[in-house]
Amino acid sequence: MSQKHPLPDKLDPRVPIAVIGATGAVGQRMVSLLAGHPWFRIAEVAASERSQGKKYSDATRWILPGDIPEDARDLTVVSVEEELSSPIVLSAVDASVADEIEPLHASRGKFVVSNTKSFRMKADVPLLVPEVNSDHLALVERQSWRKEKGGAIITNPNCVVVGLAMGLAPLHRAFGLEAVTVVTLQALSGAGYPGVPSLDAQGNVIPFIDGEEEKIEREPGKILGLLTEDGVIPADFKISVAVNRVPVRDGHTESVFVKLKRKASLAEIKEALEGFTGEPQALGLPFAPAQPIVVRGENNRPQPVRDVETGHGMVVTIGRLRPDPVYDVRFTLLVHNTVRGAAGAALLNAELLLARGLVPVAPVSAA
Amino acid sequence: MSQKHPLPDKLDPRVPIAVIGATGAVGQRMVSLLAGHPWFRIAEVAASERSQGKKYSDATRWILPGDIPEDARDLTVVSVEEELSSPIVLSAVDASVADEIEPLHASRGKFVVSNTKSFRMKADVPLLVPEVNSDHLALVERQSWRKEKGGAIITNPNCVVVGLAMGLAPLHRAFGLEAVTVVTLQALSGAGYPGVPSLDAQGNVIPFIDGEEEKIEREPGKILGLLTEDGVIPADFKISVAVNRVPVRDGHTESVFVKLKRKASLAEIKEALEGFTGEPQALGLPFAPAQPIVVRGENNRPQPVRDVETGHGMVVTIGRLRPDPVYDVRFTLLVHNTVRGAAGAALLNAELLLARGLVPVAPVSAA
Amino acid sequence: MSQKHPLPDKLDPRVPIAVIGATGAVGQRMVSLLAGHPWFRIAEVAASERSQGKKYSDATRWILPGDIPEDARDLTVVSVEEELSSPIVLSAVDASVADEIEPLHASRGKFVVSNTKSFRMKADVPLLVPEVNSDHLALVERQSWRKEKGGAIITNPNCVVVGLAMGLAPLHRAFGLEAVTVVTLQALSGAGYPGVPSLDAQGNVIPFIDGEEEKIEREPGKILGLLTEDGVIPADFKISVAVNRVPVRDGHTESVFVKLKRKASLAEIKEALEGFTGEPQALGLPFAPAQPIVVRGENNRPQPVRDVETGHGMVVTIGRLRPDPVYDVRFTLLVHNTVRGAAGAALLNAELLLARGLVPVAPVSAA
Amino acid sequence: MSQKHPLPDKLDPRVPIAVIGATGAVGQRMVSLLAGHPWFRIAEVAASERSQGKKYSDATRWILPGDIPEDARDLTVVSVEEELSSPIVLSAVDASVADEIEPLHASRGKFVVSNTKSFRMKADVPLLVPEVNSDHLALVERQSWRKEKGGAIITNPNCVVVGLAMGLAPLHRAFGLEAVTVVTLQALSGAGYPGVPSLDAQGNVIPFIDGEEEKIEREPGKILGLLTEDGVIPADFKISVAVNRVPVRDGHTESVFVKLKRKASLAEIKEALEGFTGEPQALGLPFAPAQPIVVRGENNRPQPVRDVETGHGMVVTIGRLRPDPVYDVRFTLLVHNTVRGAAGAALLNAELLLARGLVPVAPVSAA
Repeated sequence: MSQKHPLPDKLDPRVPIAVIGATGAVGQRMVSLLAGHPWFRIAEVAASERSQGKKYSDATRWILPGDIPEDARDLTVVSVEEELSSPIVLSAVDASVADEIEPLHASRGKFVVSNTKSFRMKADVPLLVPEVNSDHLALVERQSWRKEKGGAIITNPNCVVVGLAMGLAPLHRAFGLEAVTVVTLQALSGAGYPGVPSLDAQGNVIPFIDGEEEKIEREPGKILGLLTEDGVIPADFKISVAVNRVPVRDGHTESVFVKLKRKASLAEIKEALEGFTGEPQALGLPFAPAQPIVVRGENNRPQPVRDVETGHGMVVTIGRLRPDPVYDVRFTLLVHNTVRGAAGAALLNAELLLARGLVPVAPVSAA
Repeated sequence: MSQKHPLPDKLDPRVPIAVIGATGAVGQRMVSLLAGHPWFRIAEVAASERSQGKKYSDATRWILPGDIPEDARDLTVVSVEEELSSPIVLSAVDASVADEIEPLHASRGKFVVSNTKSFRMKADVPLLVPEVNSDHLALVERQSWRKEKGGAIITNPNCVVVGLAMGLAPLHRAFGLEAVTVVTLQALSGAGYPGVPSLDAQGNVIPFIDGEEEKIEREPGKILGLLTEDGVIPADFKISVAVNRVPVRDGHTESVFVKLKRKASLAEIKEALEGFTGEPQALGLPFAPAQPIVVRGENNRPQPVRDVETGHGMVVTIGRLRPDPVYDVRFTLLVHNTVRGAAGAALLNAELLLARGLVPVAPVSAA
Repeated sequence: MSQKHPLPDKLDPRVPIAVIGATGAVGQRMVSLLAGHPWFRIAEVAASERSQGKKYSDATRWILPGDIPEDARDLTVVSVEEELSSPIVLSAVDASVADEIEPLHASRGKFVVSNTKSFRMKADVPLLVPEVNSDHLALVERQSWRKEKGGAIITNPNCVVVGLAMGLAPLHRAFGLEAVTVVTLQALSGAGYPGVPSLDAQGNVIPFIDGEEEKIEREPGKILGLLTEDGVIPADFKISVAVNRVPVRDGHTESVFVKLKRKASLAEIKEALEGFTGEPQALGLPFAPAQPIVVRGENNRPQPVRDVETGHGMVVTIGRLRPDPVYDVRFTLLVHNTVRGAAGAALLNAELLLARGLVPVAPVSAA
Repeated sequence: MSQKHPLPDKLDPRVPIAVIGATGAVGQRMVSLLAGHPWFRIAEVAASERSQGKKYSDATRWILPGDIPEDARDLTVVSVEEELSSPIVLSAVDASVADEIEPLHASRGKFVVSNTKSFRMKADVPLLVPEVNSDHLALVERQSWRKEKGGAIITNPNCVVVGLAMGLAPLHRAFGLEAVTVVTLQALSGAGYPGVPSLDAQGNVIPFIDGEEEKIEREPGKILGLLTEDGVIPADFKISVAVNRVPVRDGHTESVFVKLKRKASLAEIKEALEGFTGEPQALGLPFAPAQPIVVRGENNRPQPVRDVETGHGMVVTIGRLRPDPVYDVRFTLLVHNTVRGAAGAALLNAELLLARGLVPVAPVSAA
């Protein structure tokens, strides 16, 4: 579908979508990824009071390469509380805002597809990595908003956790997880904008990110957990984390150590990782990479500057797979924190909703 | 002792010292640290064939801030094989050179104080971190060079290991070590010059350093080991490592996880770390910091740009001391890789030799 | 033309092309830009002795993001002296090699399209920026190689000069140039690989690049010069340059000050810049951007991380257009040094050759 | 004077000094430079409302290497409006605050030594670079505050201008200035803290700093101007500037082009630069470097990481002195922007005040 000669809105058969928190770092990435999307068209943008009533291009200090996409440039920014018309609301608002705003939109019958932490651990809210636990999507039927007006909240995990859960899922399925230790080297874009001051970032390591270790220790258990009548029973393994901020633009690197319940050879582990696919691949979702995990054999990969854009940022790259003297296996994992780890994760969740027929519109085929 | 009006060599009572591999990154740091040293004066510099016969200032592409110290500038570079007159030879040559050259100087009766890996694991060679295992120095008496001509080889560990061994030693003594996992974020200066190409370093993480993990898994056992009649019995704990290169100039950051043999509270652990001292402190060696380990309470420290120069680069800074769900305790450790981790380590070893009276000269008091 | 199901070589109607110096930084960029090119297919790669006989993917330490393109991966690297079969030879060899090798291929009847400095200033060799001086291409008919076997050498300028010449050409045409001063802030990729050591680049500025100022002061005169029977008469304006290397990956920034022969308003200057096009646009060459120069109105642009990829790296971005108290006008210019400034420049030259019908094959239309 | 055993305040013969705006980037540098100063002791710190009543160490997010100096750590932060007891007030407040606050302290009889732009161009306020125009200090006698209560405001220039004025002054004196063009590559610390977001700084160049070019075009004329009965007559030369922000921590690099009134050889120019001294050297002020300008002969210097600390950051380093095809001479200049360009500049001004006997206390000799 050409961006140069877009269909007039009335004729565009794509599903309208709203982005709330659209002027922030993750919101911008959502807007960017929606440009030219075969199923969705960006129809509404909402942001904080300061931006309301302005054109999106005037309200936004665009931090991504290139310019604001044509299809968003002239949209008028509305309040995050405003009643939206799109059936799907991508949310990139701060947690403090999400606490009240996301339920508001859900209660109005919208599908709120959120990147924010507020409801990730709520018992009836799916915390989705579609390749890993798309069955958890069934949780939405237990949400009161869904029962009343058809709306729901679904969430994607923390940016580190998206990559980690994808790397751990095939091992968990095939061999069982006993214990995991993760040390992260996280990119600057993970802190948003203005985010980390350059005097802190430049040539430095900061061994702390507020609240991050807690999320990384909490979320994987739910994602890899078992869906039951009584909710998700968290996967039973120990996890220990240390986070670091490093002067990298995009791409969280994770040094991962894993103790398995059942011993496995490196060849078996590699096979499990490379063979890993899920419902997004089966459904052919537009943002689903054919092979979600790429395992590299070179001893000095993955590297953010070389590998972060693999699969348009939706692939998790793993390297340095090797035995470990304390655990069983260790490896290095790279995830694009604002694509697969945030905006792309939300978008894949939205695609899953559409493909499953949950949203009250028909998906259209790509041009 | 003023550098502006140095004593003529004949009157300078300081012990002459030679640096071999003097034009490389670690050699330069040795030359830099020797400037104005109260006990030693740099008397000889040796380097590869290309540099021989040149003035040190002409042979060296100086990579440290400021200029080449006055006292080294005009020295003539000699061959690394040349018979040297100084009783102590600081060695920063490559391992391939050290294999043959260090024994050569030892066999001529010199104390070779080496930063190179070649002889670190040799049974009768001390692998010293003077605060930790200065008793291992006694090993030199078992060296054939020592018995024949009085010479010997003593070594300091890998740059990561110096910091790690210092952080682990007080825990090992007080509580016993069961298992250790370390993930490193290592500085560019650790790769020497020209070292890492900027296109690899800039905004990137490289999850590999050739041979590094092997050293880090091998050396701490010997350092923390027990000196017996039959040699050093390595300390008995498991260790697992993943290394990363990050775009930091100086200072290796280490995320460390420790399982102890005997449970200990965080307060006990902190007390053990902060109270840690050794023979260098007892002897008042010039390069020995009063408190070798500084524990910081802020949650975002240590940071290379803020903490690496603590104690003139000879202090190991530890922060984020906290309990661990898989191990017992975890923390972040920072060591100045070319000072405490290399050139300063060698110099402290040389000071120990002098203070112990092993070198056949009398130490002089500082001016 | 899909890369996934490429035509067998025999059926592929695209013109085969050879890249010599294919394993270096610019050579890699050439290989990368040729992937999926509508008119050309990479058929041969040549490099230094060390690489000969190896598969391109084994011989090359690939430094660009992503992987080596499929169509080059399995090519066998041949000697730069080997007789090639492709009618066009893209050259990215070092000047020391180019001195002998480029004439060799020209003498065998090949069109050597060179990025190297060796023959840029030779009287009968076109120094081309196709938007600026495509008429200079006629110079090839004066080359002895052309007369004898049909071969020729054509060149593109230094990476800074490509951008500068594009920015100056419309001003020269419309108002005349009196004097120009340029200060450059050049990217690391301009030094190739391994290029600038990270300890020199990290958080630093290096106010020198060997031979660079000479090229920047020499080449624009020829490019903007007048083609006559007696050769190119250099454009008559003074130029003064200071170069700096800065820790940026891709994109040379240039602070430019211009004194014009005829006074012009900022509006006239902006119009001249924005309206600038040339033969590549007229011919619709595949690598020709529709608008070669983009003028931005924001006061803090162009910036390498935001603007360098504009027009797939083939657009020159100009900003901060403003009057100058000493000269007449000043502005900041950004050029992608390895695309528009090197590999893309050569490729555009090759496209021009093909479109002009100089190469003895018929151009094919894009799939 | 040892920091370890400081004299009790009552016995400390050093002149008490106040720092207002003490918690900001320049204020911190002032506090840092005052630690152990032979003539001054920090006695009072003032900052914005948010910090008042707190201990300085609690109110300050310290961004310099190491820790807050002992002598400032426990000072209680007061309001910038509070009546201070120290005779000298170093001011690092924002211009918006300085507009009202600096006159307030001057009107109370204090010497306000300001780094802020507010009063730099006021006719009766000296804009001092003590080596260049210490005679302008006489202007204070024309200030109404001085006449009434003895107080006065003296200022130092913009950080770029300090270095530039020092480089131009000897040329202006010896040969006369006709025109100057300057392109800057400015460090991140010049923007204070939090200052430039890392996503803007990382691997990037920003060709704009708000208000900076205006200051650089305005201030040098006054500094190099002639003091007369009617005020300072600005030096009569044209100046043209383009600024850039680059990812360097400390140290502004300036590419400078100079047209002289009287022709001079490079040797004469070099001699003028190297021989340049002024009243600070004659008086032996503690912060005055013996040789204010160091000219380096290597073709790749000055560099921020190698040269910025020369003379404890108080020396201006010049390199790449060479003839220019458009102007007469060009060179690269490096100034430590927060030391010689800001906090150190103010401190040198304060020392000059004391040495001249303007402050109503006797200077004491260094311990």
